[in-house]
Amino acid sequence: MRFFSDNAAPACPQVIAAIGEANVQDTAYDGDGWSARLDARFSQLFETDVAVLWVPTGTAANCLALAALCPPYGGIVCHREAHIQADEAGAPEFFTHGAKLLLAEGSGAKLTPDAIRATIDPIRPGVHWVQPHAVSITNATEYGLAYTPAEVAAIGALARERGLKLHMDGARFANAVAYLDCTPADLTWRAGVDALSFGFIKNGGLGAEALIFFDPAMGEATRIRRKRAGHLQSKGRFLAAQLLAMLDDDLWLRNARAANAGAALLAQAAGDRLVHPVESNGVFLRVSPGEAATLRAAGFDFYDWGPGEARLMVAWDQGPEAIGPLADAIRAL
Amino acid sequence: MRFFSDNAAPACPQVIAAIGEANVQDTAYDGDGWSARLDARFSQLFETDVAVLWVPTGTAANCLALAALCPPYGGIVCHREAHIQADEAGAPEFFTHGAKLLLAEGSGAKLTPDAIRATIDPIRPGVHWVQPHAVSITNATEYGLAYTPAEVAAIGALARERGLKLHMDGARFANAVAYLDCTPADLTWRAGVDALSFGFIKNGGLGAEALIFFDPAMGEATRIRRKRAGHLQSKGRFLAAQLLAMLDDDLWLRNARAANAGAALLAQAAGDRLVHPVESNGVFLRVSPGEAATLRAAGFDFYDWGPGEARLMVAWDQGPEAIGPLADAIRAL
Amino acid sequence: MRFFSDNAAPACPQVIAAIGEANVQDTAYDGDGWSARLDARFSQLFETDVAVLWVPTGTAANCLALAALCPPYGGIVCHREAHIQADEAGAPEFFTHGAKLLLAEGSGAKLTPDAIRATIDPIRPGVHWVQPHAVSITNATEYGLAYTPAEVAAIGALARERGLKLHMDGARFANAVAYLDCTPADLTWRAGVDALSFGFIKNGGLGAEALIFFDPAMGEATRIRRKRAGHLQSKGRFLAAQLLAMLDDDLWLRNARAANAGAALLAQAAGDRLVHPVESNGVFLRVSPGEAATLRAAGFDFYDWGPGEARLMVAWDQGPEAIGPLADAIRAL
Amino acid sequence: MRFFSDNAAPACPQVIAAIGEANVQDTAYDGDGWSARLDARFSQLFETDVAVLWVPTGTAANCLALAALCPPYGGIVCHREAHIQADEAGAPEFFTHGAKLLLAEGSGAKLTPDAIRATIDPIRPGVHWVQPHAVSITNATEYGLAYTPAEVAAIGALARERGLKLHMDGARFANAVAYLDCTPADLTWRAGVDALSFGFIKNGGLGAEALIFFDPAMGEATRIRRKRAGHLQSKGRFLAAQLLAMLDDDLWLRNARAANAGAALLAQAAGDRLVHPVESNGVFLRVSPGEAATLRAAGFDFYDWGPGEARLMVAWDQGPEAIGPLADAIRAL
Repeated sequence: MRFFSDNAAPACPQVIAAIGEANVQDTAYDGDGWSARLDARFSQLFETDVAVLWVPTGTAANCLALAALCPPYGGIVCHREAHIQADEAGAPEFFTHGAKLLLAEGSGAKLTPDAIRATIDPIRPGVHWVQPHAVSITNATEYGLAYTPAEVAAIGALARERGLKLHMDGARFANAVAYLDCTPADLTWRAGVDALSFGFIKNGGLGAEALIFFDPAMGEATRIRRKRAGHLQSKGRFLAAQLLAMLDDDLWLRNARAANAGAALLAQAAGDRLVHPVESNGVFLRVSPGEAATLRAAGFDFYDWGPGEARLMVAWDQGPEAIGPLADAIRAL
Repeated sequence: MRFFSDNAAPACPQVIAAIGEANVQDTAYDGDGWSARLDARFSQLFETDVAVLWVPTGTAANCLALAALCPPYGGIVCHREAHIQADEAGAPEFFTHGAKLLLAEGSGAKLTPDAIRATIDPIRPGVHWVQPHAVSITNATEYGLAYTPAEVAAIGALARERGLKLHMDGARFANAVAYLDCTPADLTWRAGVDALSFGFIKNGGLGAEALIFFDPAMGEATRIRRKRAGHLQSKGRFLAAQLLAMLDDDLWLRNARAANAGAALLAQAAGDRLVHPVESNGVFLRVSPGEAATLRAAGFDFYDWGPGEARLMVAWDQGPEAIGPLADAIRAL
Repeated sequence: MRFFSDNAAPACPQVIAAIGEANVQDTAYDGDGWSARLDARFSQLFETDVAVLWVPTGTAANCLALAALCPPYGGIVCHREAHIQADEAGAPEFFTHGAKLLLAEGSGAKLTPDAIRATIDPIRPGVHWVQPHAVSITNATEYGLAYTPAEVAAIGALARERGLKLHMDGARFANAVAYLDCTPADLTWRAGVDALSFGFIKNGGLGAEALIFFDPAMGEATRIRRKRAGHLQSKGRFLAAQLLAMLDDDLWLRNARAANAGAALLAQAAGDRLVHPVESNGVFLRVSPGEAATLRAAGFDFYDWGPGEARLMVAWDQGPEAIGPLADAIRAL
Repeated sequence: MRFFSDNAAPACPQVIAAIGEANVQDTAYDGDGWSARLDARFSQLFETDVAVLWVPTGTAANCLALAALCPPYGGIVCHREAHIQADEAGAPEFFTHGAKLLLAEGSGAKLTPDAIRATIDPIRPGVHWVQPHAVSITNATEYGLAYTPAEVAAIGALARERGLKLHMDGARFANAVAYLDCTPADLTWRAGVDALSFGFIKNGGLGAEALIFFDPAMGEATRIRRKRAGHLQSKGRFLAAQLLAMLDDDLWLRNARAANAGAALLAQAAGDRLVHPVESNGVFLRVSPGEAATLRAAGFDFYDWGPGEARLMVAWDQGPEAIGPLADAIRAL
């Protein structure tokens, strides 16, 4: 059983069905009926007027957001291990035309107002030093920690105070919402978030993420940038349909709850092997090379995550019932 | 019946089926089994070793190709009405970091060696003037004309002589091959083409195009650029599966033949109303405003293409049987 | 005697003297006493509050201006033969991160409102087509024609109406002002110009041009971009001192008048050989290859400018007294 | 007396004189007689064939070099406190089109092979992570430390082994050579350096630095990039003349020796107040706020460099004789 990545999971059947249903003649690009429903549907979910753009990858969502929030000569504060810094091959620099990521520290890839201050306070004003224009946080983080609404709000307050825009990389936003049992609104715009990369693909989607701007005007130029980056798919109805299917009957939330529940079971089994508290669908374990080999021999695949650590990502289709054998195997180590 | 764009057509059932079949757990990005088969499958089709990258849009295919063929400070010769110049919102400039499109003229958006010479010969050597590094041609052109293998080869010979790389925007490559009844090899690398944007989406695909490098080494950095542009989809198996389905049993060619046949029927009906010979699936007609209104009143939708002209794009699912009523309506004008 | 380029001329003695006088210890970059006086001094000249940045080249001035007036995804209307399009090696694309130059036509490289409309009116709204954001005109033009204040104002009015910013490439602004005998204010901000590249180097300067923003706030980010482009010289006092010396006692205007007077003499001598009216310091002549050879044999150097044409640029130190022999030689042809 | 920056110093008289001598009519850009002599003159100095480009700032030299050595999607290893990372406002990202600086650690802003390995070894191969393409070291470093030829060679060997190009930011290269008493060749290409930003401005120059490529072919495209970045000054003879004047009679070395000697005197006076060994013209002292105030009250100006530290930069015209009073004042603290 594979726990490499929630990206490796299949798409859920409702998404596949939605693609089939969208397979009719309709206006190209985002002129179709499905795309036309997105703003209203997400506005309802977020309890405020939002602008929504479908994009095919989280990298595109993140980097289009950053390009909207930061000029080419500006800086974006993020964690040293943030996906945009560590795993996107310089895509932020490409989309922003060379903005600089200003790195901050924090356990479990989680930022705090103090960590952000430690990064930006030493930057003198003036033209010789890249000035911060935005902050980007990942919720849930790359290590599976969830920022609470209050934690986001504290960062949001600092951002406003310093004139910075706030982006949330929500590749696993659903898992954070599911874990925190809060509203999407409380975790985002009410806490000061300007733009959200709302991930669906790791959560049972196929090839569509939603880029949300809480000030719809802020997204206008992004529609142009999406085209300019080759992301305006000509049969966009297929992406919009995926997103709508994920919102129907809270599928996004149900999938995330299932994955989280699987991870929680593993957490229970792991006990003090846990490197970080499990607050979404990722489980980071301390395991010796021998123990790792034992798990693999039993048919469980996963990534080593630095020496003596393993990362196990639980997908939407690996809920509690599927996870039992792995939990037992961990207990048996 | 809508003839706005072949992008408006549905995807063909084999492609939808292939998506369903690819909906299993597999390695993320392009590490899956479907992606792994692409190089071999396309190499077979092209009778030479090629490197193939799936990408979700023609714009991405074109612009990744151009970035591989031209440095940021270089120039790319293309027709004044080429899609990359006229309809991609500056995407070539974005992907190439500011390379300049050097515009050439030609009837029906078709270039000739002479037209290319007329553009590049006046460029003095030296650092003050953007020097040409590549040529991009569209086959079939934006007006539906097909370059023959010999015509491409003449341009290819000029390109080699002047040290220029040659890109073919093949958004409707299938329609050109179908019309010319030639091999894909004869129309591309044997004629000097270095990179081909091989379009499938307008031809019954859903969300995958193939970017082909005939010198596989030339595509290496493009794999990085694809990631950096946010185009490396995490569930890439779904894109690869679409491409493979299109190649199975020459589906790509059969679809193109169907659309071409529909267009040919319209051409017959149109007689001297034709603005350009019909050599693929696009038909450009001379119609007065009143005639256009008559067609629309009869339920046929299309774009006006300049004053007194209409563009009718025939899709893969609008073959001869479907096209009859429109042909009749044109005849009746 | 050389008439290749006004760039080939020496700097005038006052500029050399100013460099000597600025050769003291002072704060680096633009923190020195000379730089500090620029805004006030140019504001006086332009009869309004302006922000001034010294830069070492006209290309830098033009392209920093364009980057301030147009986003990376926007378009800039300019003449097909404008220096920014034809002679700056893609620098506008570099500084703007890929904005597109939208080319317009006009005799003598001069734009009119109608010519601009002919370029921008066909651009449909929407994300597929690069939308215009700015207009750039060159005064005097690359062929030595001067836009009058009224002509600039007509373009300025169109620009405001369409939401476009207006840039003036004033590499030979001094020559235009001298020819028109108008105020710098009337030829710029009163006519709707937002940013001016005020050239000094072709007019007796050494290595400093002035980039002027008539809305000082518009120049703020440009100070950052200047640094980011490597144009914030550490001993900036030497550039500021050059500019101040050129303004002292209207040296800039006296130099331009001298060059214009030289050109006027040549114009008189040329009679119907003139390709364009002579409205600044450039003279474009119809000469046969044999006549060109005769002039060269007599010791006069110049560029061929297309078949049967010669370009003679008169410099600040080639006033009437120096120009006599060439005028005679032309008359003698 | 001011010790803020060696940039604040005047230019030395020979440079001013050279500007006067170059003030004649000559071919524009770098077609003049002075520019024509550069390659030969620097090749002699470096005992090998080099290509030399004058540029007006160290930032331009550094960033043009980096753009030549690293593609837009690549990474450049440098020290966390390197000027290119800390003080150039994102210029490297601008010139390289978004390459990423990969930060390494080391006391006194000095890199070692081990420090570089610690930065690059964890980077997995593959398209998700920015791969290193170049290393940039500063000699003398931002804290005044000089890399010896052997130290550079060790880094050069690692660079070659890993396929990385090696750039040296030599804003104070002269001071390093003077301190080490080695040949320019031993400190650069013989040790594996591919490109050198050879600084003159901090060392008595006015507005010209030399960008040196030890493989002349490597600099070809850089001539285009220089134009494209607005750095090809039209009266380039004035820059070339400055560089030639600095090489005449080893003026560059004599100036550097003078500044170093001044710094050495301060070092002696400072004793264990020194934060770093003094190996060029920069002196970093531990001083309490009260002591700093005492020095300032006595007329000595300098920058605070973090809490309890002061940076004193000694210029070419602040040799031993001029430095005595400050040395006394430090001793008297």
